[in-house]
This record gives sequence, structure tokens and C-alpha cells, in this order.
Amino acid sequence: MRKVNQHLNNRALLALGEAIRNRRVDLLLSQEQVAAGAQLHRTYVTDVENGLRNLSFLTLLRFAEALNCTLSKIMIETESIDSFEHKAHDQD
Amino acid sequence: MRKVNQHLNNRALLALGEAIRNRRVDLLLSQEQVAAGAQLHRTYVTDVENGLRNLSFLTLLRFAEALNCTLSKIMIETESIDSFEHKAHDQD
Repeated sequence: MRKVNQHLNNRALLALGEAIRNRRVDLLLSQEQVAAGAQLHRTYVTDVENGLRNLSFLTLLRFAEALNCTLSKIMIETESIDSFEHKAHDQD
Repeated sequence: MRKVNQHLNNRALLALGEAIRNRRVDLLLSQEQVAAGAQLHRTYVTDVENGLRNLSFLTLLRFAEALNCTLSKIMIETESIDSFEHKAHDQD
């Protein structure tokens, strides 16, 4: 569990996870459906939505694809949830 | 070099690298200055600009901080360089 717990309570990751969850819920998709679309495991999607994974750029793109939107749109939503700019490594 | 070369010619990473380089050049910053601002090694910045690194969300935020802009702005620029949506794993 170390790899997951090291990111516990990181504000930026929590905001990203919330943005991804909001988008999924807006589309009436289950975590399983997003996982299938992004070719990821369902528990990984759960971890991302809970802010526990520092996912890579290419994995972010897979989420955008599964959520039928651009990555910039997800980032704009993330920034609207928590203005974490310039705080990236406060808790990392 | 394996970790770097595995992402050779990935379109999305090339576009991201170009967006980051464009922003740095617009600000008249050197790679060394961006590296210092993002607390990364200069060669890592070079690799990112050349599309050779699949960097994490939190590292992307450090680039945004060093480039004095939001991550959404970098993503919008990235998408304008190459409309790679839905192509994330074509070459990954």
C-alpha cells in the first residue's frame, strides 16, 4: 500500500480525482465502465477518484478518452475545484 | 536509456514537450532555469521537451509552476499543437 498512501491528502490529487468523478457521474458511467474505456483496473479508477494516485500524462489521456472529453477540460475543472497552482509539492 | 526510449515518437508526448518548450522560450527562460524552478534535473527538462518522458500529474504541476501558468493552459497549448485526443495509446 505504500505507493498509494504516499499521496494521501495531496490537495492537487484530491481535486483531480473529484474532477474525474464529477465528469464520470455527469455521464452516468460506472467506475467499471470508465476502467474498461481507459483499459485500466476498476480499483485503479477508484484510487484516482480518491486522490491516491499520481497518474502519468498518458494515463490522464486515457481517462479523458474514456470520459469523452479533452484533458484540458479535466484540468480546468480540477483547477476550479481547488486553486492548487504553485502548491504542487506542498504535501508531496 | 530504456525508460526514455520506450516513449520515442509518441505524438501526445511530443506535443506536450513542444508546448512546454514554447512556453519556456516565450518567457526567455533557459532549461536550467525551468529545472531549478521545478526542482528537477536539467536533463529531465530536456527529455520532457523532446517528448521522451511520460511525466506524472504532480510533475506536470511543477512545470506549470516553473512556467508561471496553469496546467490547463499547457494542456490547451498541447492540444492545439496536435489533436491527439483518443490517440493516447496508439504508440504507447
